[in-house]
Amino acid sequence: MPDRSQLEAFQTPSDTPFVIEHVSEEFTSVCPKTGHPDFGHVTLRYQPRSASAGGVCVELKSLKLYYQSFRNEGIYYEAVTNSIRDDLVQLMNPEWLQIITDWKGRGGIRSTIRADHGDVPPHFRGR
Amino acid sequence: MPDRSQLEAFQTPSDTPFVIEHVSEEFTSVCPKTGHPDFGHVTLRYQPRSASAGGVCVELKSLKLYYQSFRNEGIYYEAVTNSIRDDLVQLMNPEWLQIITDWKGRGGIRSTIRADHGDVPPHFRGR
Amino acid sequence: MPDRSQLEAFQTPSDTPFVIEHVSEEFTSVCPKTGHPDFGHVTLRYQPRSASAGGVCVELKSLKLYYQSFRNEGIYYEAVTNSIRDDLVQLMNPEWLQIITDWKGRGGIRSTIRADHGDVPPHFRGR
Amino acid sequence: MPDRSQLEAFQTPSDTPFVIEHVSEEFTSVCPKTGHPDFGHVTLRYQPRSASAGGVCVELKSLKLYYQSFRNEGIYYEAVTNSIRDDLVQLMNPEWLQIITDWKGRGGIRSTIRADHGDVPPHFRGR
Amino acid sequence: MPDRSQLEAFQTPSDTPFVIEHVSEEFTSVCPKTGHPDFGHVTLRYQPRSASAGGVCVELKSLKLYYQSFRNEGIYYEAVTNSIRDDLVQLMNPEWLQIITDWKGRGGIRSTIRADHGDVPPHFRGR
Amino acid sequence: MPDRSQLEAFQTPSDTPFVIEHVSEEFTSVCPKTGHPDFGHVTLRYQPRSASAGGVCVELKSLKLYYQSFRNEGIYYEAVTNSIRDDLVQLMNPEWLQIITDWKGRGGIRSTIRADHGDVPPHFRGR
Amino acid sequence: MPDRSQLEAFQTPSDTPFVIEHVSEEFTSVCPKTGHPDFGHVTLRYQPRSASAGGVCVELKSLKLYYQSFRNEGIYYEAVTNSIRDDLVQLMNPEWLQIITDWKGRGGIRSTIRADHGDVPPHFRGR
Amino acid sequence: MPDRSQLEAFQTPSDTPFVIEHVSEEFTSVCPKTGHPDFGHVTLRYQPRSASAGGVCVELKSLKLYYQSFRNEGIYYEAVTNSIRDDLVQLMNPEWLQIITDWKGRGGIRSTIRADHGDVPPHFRGR
Amino acid sequence: MPDRSQLEAFQTPSDTPFVIEHVSEEFTSVCPKTGHPDFGHVTLRYQPRSASAGGVCVELKSLKLYYQSFRNEGIYYEAVTNSIRDDLVQLMNPEWLQIITDWKGRGGIRSTIRADHGDVPPHFRGR
Amino acid sequence: MPDRSQLEAFQTPSDTPFVIEHVSEEFTSVCPKTGHPDFGHVTLRYQPRSASAGGVCVELKSLKLYYQSFRNEGIYYEAVTNSIRDDLVQLMNPEWLQIITDWKGRGGIRSTIRADHGDVPPHFRGR
Repeated sequence: MPDRSQLEAFQTPSDTPFVIEHVSEEFTSVCPKTGHPDFGHVTLRYQPRSASAGGVCVELKSLKLYYQSFRNEGIYYEAVTNSIRDDLVQLMNPEWLQIITDWKGRGGIRSTIRADHGDVPPHFRGR
Repeated sequence: MPDRSQLEAFQTPSDTPFVIEHVSEEFTSVCPKTGHPDFGHVTLRYQPRSASAGGVCVELKSLKLYYQSFRNEGIYYEAVTNSIRDDLVQLMNPEWLQIITDWKGRGGIRSTIRADHGDVPPHFRGR
Repeated sequence: MPDRSQLEAFQTPSDTPFVIEHVSEEFTSVCPKTGHPDFGHVTLRYQPRSASAGGVCVELKSLKLYYQSFRNEGIYYEAVTNSIRDDLVQLMNPEWLQIITDWKGRGGIRSTIRADHGDVPPHFRGR
Repeated sequence: MPDRSQLEAFQTPSDTPFVIEHVSEEFTSVCPKTGHPDFGHVTLRYQPRSASAGGVCVELKSLKLYYQSFRNEGIYYEAVTNSIRDDLVQLMNPEWLQIITDWKGRGGIRSTIRADHGDVPPHFRGR
Repeated sequence: MPDRSQLEAFQTPSDTPFVIEHVSEEFTSVCPKTGHPDFGHVTLRYQPRSASAGGVCVELKSLKLYYQSFRNEGIYYEAVTNSIRDDLVQLMNPEWLQIITDWKGRGGIRSTIRADHGDVPPHFRGR
Repeated sequence: MPDRSQLEAFQTPSDTPFVIEHVSEEFTSVCPKTGHPDFGHVTLRYQPRSASAGGVCVELKSLKLYYQSFRNEGIYYEAVTNSIRDDLVQLMNPEWLQIITDWKGRGGIRSTIRADHGDVPPHFRGR
Repeated sequence: MPDRSQLEAFQTPSDTPFVIEHVSEEFTSVCPKTGHPDFGHVTLRYQPRSASAGGVCVELKSLKLYYQSFRNEGIYYEAVTNSIRDDLVQLMNPEWLQIITDWKGRGGIRSTIRADHGDVPPHFRGR
Repeated sequence: MPDRSQLEAFQTPSDTPFVIEHVSEEFTSVCPKTGHPDFGHVTLRYQPRSASAGGVCVELKSLKLYYQSFRNEGIYYEAVTNSIRDDLVQLMNPEWLQIITDWKGRGGIRSTIRADHGDVPPHFRGR
Repeated sequence: MPDRSQLEAFQTPSDTPFVIEHVSEEFTSVCPKTGHPDFGHVTLRYQPRSASAGGVCVELKSLKLYYQSFRNEGIYYEAVTNSIRDDLVQLMNPEWLQIITDWKGRGGIRSTIRADHGDVPPHFRGR
Repeated sequence: MPDRSQLEAFQTPSDTPFVIEHVSEEFTSVCPKTGHPDFGHVTLRYQPRSASAGGVCVELKSLKLYYQSFRNEGIYYEAVTNSIRDDLVQLMNPEWLQIITDWKGRGGIRSTIRADHGDVPPHFRGR
């Protein structure tokens, strides 16, 4: 099962706002309908709260392990995307956060799911 | 004939707004004037209504079969684009929806048709 | 001479606004100064008026023949772009229309000319 | 059914050997097992016999119509490739001939089939 | 465990030699040392024996299932490559066969392993 | 020395606003510090004043000769960019104008300088 | 008509063998069947005879004018390729010579024609 | 240690606002956790204060040496980005400034960190 | 100093010949003349001796650490390439081995050095 | 004038054969006919004689200065290529050597000149 206990955070290093983006090109889960594996890219983009407000950042290795916990999970594209957003929002309570999943094709159709949290700046929306 | 009865929907998994995009690179229909086949890509992008408002998403395999039903249909670029938009709007009644069709060249000219429904956010318009 | 009589239109299929784009990658005319041929791409993008308002679309084959009528015409980049815009506006009276011409290099310099008609939406400007 | 009667030939224009290549990027047939459409590219490469030896070339439009006759045919990748090779060899009796079919993915696997006739020069083999 | 019993073959359709290539872009196994997943592409290229000599081809869906059976296997790059070659040679006894595995990076180093069986033609070697 | 006397203009062909872009990929000057040559691309983008307001366009061959006059000039990136902007503004008095210079690397660092004149539309800024 | 009198040659500068390649990306002629323009790239590759053997090279501007003389000529792909080869062989009597023409698509099929003269080295064949 | 004393500035050449961008593709530091080297690209983008307001620009060679001073520094992505921003803001006191660092992958995840100072124009945000 | 003691080997898994390629995109050393860092890619390609002949393969993590030992070494391109070849040949005594180093530019010139050991098959030479 | 006195050599570091390649992307000279600048890439590839046979390598900075000495020289493509080959052969007396010059277009035609010295291995010919 997706294992949110893997996720760890560390204190953000600055009070000045900045934006962090992590792109995983090695995400895989399993289609709950067919049992065949799905492969995709997962983009996480967020602005941590400031250090003085107790802001934290997700630790990179823990993020990798968390993503790996989906490996044998039967779960739809839409649910993957919403789960990752919810788990990371709960961990970090960031100013804003985006999850974008890009899936290789099934039946000649490739898909992208975008889920936001909070007030994503306009220049990041739709990207 | 394009067969909208192929289309099936499932309940959207979340009340938080998110955006779904499906790109089919294997669309073909027939030019009603010359009888020669047309080949194109079809991009569907939409935001479902929230789960609590009865929002639904189009099921991916049913979408593939619906697209395949155009295979031997004599129909113009513009009509393909408008038909797909209308059928999917009728199925899902989404917050907003876009259809973009990109057609390989005829006579040295390649074409793109864009049709929207509802209030498409500015960062998705013209893409 | 550029032959606007080649251009034909057909009734737009919908009252819902949509946008049509045709890209010709096989445009050629002649430089009036040197007599050498110029080669370029011509992009036409427009929104027809609604069907109930008598809106029309340019017919694709007639557009090809119209472009071919520039083949042996001695005419500058800027004049090509303005002529095409004016002829197509006269034909279709669209909501808005854009012409973008991209020219292969002369003397190590390649050029792009953009001419608009009406209220082109912001997401199409400068593209 | 694939319709070899569509194929027409014309006399080759030269006694000097030369090589002709036609790449169709709009080939489609149907999977006999699943009934779903397959999409691929078909490359034909050959050297006609010399004019004085009665050499002929396949006519381009007839080749297009021949390829279109596979549109609703249930046929495997391997059989498509062998059929096209055999039909074109029978039509032209060329010095040598190659058929290469590149198929978009099924189940995450994309495929290429290569079939030769006669003594294909080493620099064309495996391409 | 890698499950060679998944593999099925069908009779080759021709006595004329031809070459088949299948590229899987969705291969994953597990590093036996670290337990982290590895991701790669697997290319299979081979020439079946002729039909009259009892030649067979690997069935595409069975190949996909066979590759999927490595999903949770702890196994090194080199062993993956040699195992696939040996299992497919045992299944098909082809004229010749190549396996090429391309692995995404570990520690900033990406790797390719090539294993051949029989007399691979020179134009396919090293590709 | 950069030779602004090379620059010539011609009357703009239209009262309708349009935008002209010229990209030179063959610009070279000399670093005043090291004496080594610098190589870059120069993009000029502008909207001429309307014909009835006496608007003019820079003539393309004269622009090429003007750029060539920098060939043996010892001059910094920033000064090149500001000089070209000032000389072209003086020549044409356009509605607005942009100069963007892209320089190949020195010491592993590549640079881009952007200088504007007048009210550049938002969709061209930062491009 | 294609005008071979445009072609001029100059004495080759060296007795040491070397190879010259000119690629024109702005070739156009007319299809004799449909009257529509064809667009293509023409590659010329050759080794001049040595200077002491009276070897000559084609002058670049004369080559451009010669290619331009096909602009309004109704002529098939195969005949264009053979004509250019024959005219340039007659002009230069080179050690060897290749003409490769690449044509943009007609009816979804793009074509390449290759014609050689003399003993083209193996590493240039098929390229 | 990162050595801000390496940084030198020179007077900006103009009172007209302009924008300077330097991209270093050869940045390396050391992961403080694992001791392994990190590799990335560093983009600096800023608008100097006007010359009459005492505006200065960072000198390019000094910037290179400053970046090189991180070579054996154990420091996290986020701290690199914030340090560079702070050191350059202190040096130049610019109108606005952006630092974007793009890092090659660790554990299959690649990262981008963006840190701004002052009022970065909207067309540069998120790029 | 380059530290060959980092290198470790393991027994090759097969008696059937196969070829291994490792590409490091994160190699850096220091120019002994200027003291500035050099950045490059290092490709290692080799065929181990057979298992029954005591053949061994270089262990991937040890290879990474060995490459990292060049980080602060003042050493020329040519010497880097020859050193790596010699150290790996001494470690593995392979059938054949290739080292290819690709270096980012210095003074506008980028370089590639190729060093072989033993009888490299023709299809790998010059690649 | 091209200044061969700029060229310096250093002793080759090894008796084992190896191959060196330097690609300059910043070469410019002047067309003797029109006076306009030409821009190109120059590739040098060679195998030095062995150290024990007195083999030498061209020093990289001296090569850069030598190339820069063509900057204001009126000289044809073919003569540039032959001059560079002859000067470098005289400097190094290598086992073999290749010069390849790639020139940006003039009149819509781009050119490549290849000149060899000695017995260039087949896998480098024609590249």
